[in-house]
Amino acid sequence: MNTITVVGTVAIDSVESPFGKQEECFGGSAAYFSYAASYFAAVRLVGVVGRDFPPAYRDILLERGIDLTDLHEQKGSTFRWQGKYEGDMNVAKTLGTDLNVLVTFDPVISNKNTDYLFLANIDPVIQSQVLKQMNVAVATAADTMNLWIDIKKDELFDVLRQVDMLVINDAEARQLTGESNLVRAMQEIALRGPTKIVIKKGEHGALGYYNGTIVAFPAFPLEKVVDPTGAGDTFAGALLGYLAQQETFSLDIFMRAIAYGAVVASFTVEDFSLNRLRTIHANDIVDRFEEYKKVIRLK
Amino acid sequence: MNTITVVGTVAIDSVESPFGKQEECFGGSAAYFSYAASYFAAVRLVGVVGRDFPPAYRDILLERGIDLTDLHEQKGSTFRWQGKYEGDMNVAKTLGTDLNVLVTFDPVISNKNTDYLFLANIDPVIQSQVLKQMNVAVATAADTMNLWIDIKKDELFDVLRQVDMLVINDAEARQLTGESNLVRAMQEIALRGPTKIVIKKGEHGALGYYNGTIVAFPAFPLEKVVDPTGAGDTFAGALLGYLAQQETFSLDIFMRAIAYGAVVASFTVEDFSLNRLRTIHANDIVDRFEEYKKVIRLK
Repeated sequence: MNTITVVGTVAIDSVESPFGKQEECFGGSAAYFSYAASYFAAVRLVGVVGRDFPPAYRDILLERGIDLTDLHEQKGSTFRWQGKYEGDMNVAKTLGTDLNVLVTFDPVISNKNTDYLFLANIDPVIQSQVLKQMNVAVATAADTMNLWIDIKKDELFDVLRQVDMLVINDAEARQLTGESNLVRAMQEIALRGPTKIVIKKGEHGALGYYNGTIVAFPAFPLEKVVDPTGAGDTFAGALLGYLAQQETFSLDIFMRAIAYGAVVASFTVEDFSLNRLRTIHANDIVDRFEEYKKVIRLK
Repeated sequence: MNTITVVGTVAIDSVESPFGKQEECFGGSAAYFSYAASYFAAVRLVGVVGRDFPPAYRDILLERGIDLTDLHEQKGSTFRWQGKYEGDMNVAKTLGTDLNVLVTFDPVISNKNTDYLFLANIDPVIQSQVLKQMNVAVATAADTMNLWIDIKKDELFDVLRQVDMLVINDAEARQLTGESNLVRAMQEIALRGPTKIVIKKGEHGALGYYNGTIVAFPAFPLEKVVDPTGAGDTFAGALLGYLAQQETFSLDIFMRAIAYGAVVASFTVEDFSLNRLRTIHANDIVDRFEEYKKVIRLK
């Protein structure tokens, strides 16, 4: 069993969608990532929360056996995000962001050895500080967001030189490269370091780049999408989790990892916060993966 | 060998994309459809052009053996469309439409027997007139557009009651049903008649509905999209063409038909007008279909 260490945000979200409104629910990139990855591998979460962080939310992570040694509690409030989804629900409208304890987040990592490292969406300067501390046995992957592409592009490029894989969404890929064609965007990103790239496209699935080979998958078709928050982080968690389960790495394994990403993300969006994920077990993932294969299988 | 009859527009297009500008090039839903379908089946085109229609454009269809008995020439000018693509190139901005001879288009069809009938995007009143005339041995499919959903919804619903399959794009599916979730949109459409539905999503691939079963496919990933005009009609032409090749109809065949639609459409967008399609042969389609299978195959 391989280990994955994820460094990212643990948040309290307030989300509005056509299906309702949830105030102060559990979220954050590292929360979704680690919960999804925990179905596949041993996960350690590195993050920070404020004094107001509900013990019940910590328990949600503990129920999946996630190692919270480095989920540090600091003076101040937990990072908060407020967002809204409308129309086709593929794009979140951010209503507010309160960084709070994230402002001074300086991750100190107790266990510096890990098989896989995932640098979720945080300041690329912090991503680099983490990279310096860690001994990664197999592979490192990273995510980012529009803000860092805007204001810390050079620092982000510095991260790209050090990671094996980049997992971002389509808008970020276009913004990062200035290239509207996503295949070419992946080729551009590969020139900056990562040999594996995944572009998440929400309801439209994902594209992958594996040492020059392009692959593509649709999303798992759903009748009802309640809240897309965390879908991308869930996707990355299942993707890395599946990879961490394997003894080898090949194009076929990469493709299955993307498919598992799509499948586990499809659970997340069926309810607010981690609510739907909390109702599933490994068997449900296997069942939906088999359904997914039927949805796309050419005979 | 089965026959397909397509009723739709034959047009002269002026198109601008980041890759250049083409004035007065060959286009139209029935032109793209029939050219793509001709790789798979015997195709008859029903349409109208004006006195100004270039004989060279007629020759383009004849070079694929398309039966033009019912491509009628009328007094006046050929239908013209001017459009522009920007950004992610998934949506055309219509700069102008001159209906010209289409205004009085009243299709009289010489050969009323056909195995498959495709009602490309034209006035649903005309689609119904065609349905009344024809004896369709196997199946009828239809397309439509936002204009008809806006101004002739009841007439369109009347068409839906009479066809086996609807092939439309995602925006049209949402507009037609008032349903933003595309899976539910297909379920709504099925309640109105068609038992098979394909929603084309441009660079994001396609969704399919087959007697209640949902399938999904990505687009064939391309490094360069020069002009998306006609991609949807090409998709429909290859889809129906592949179906017309088969002796039976099953979910597996439906899925392969969608994949062929994606594959042949991927050629169309690589150049303006029918330019790229005109360079390929059946073998090129087979080769890219094999490539496509590799792009999405889960082992």
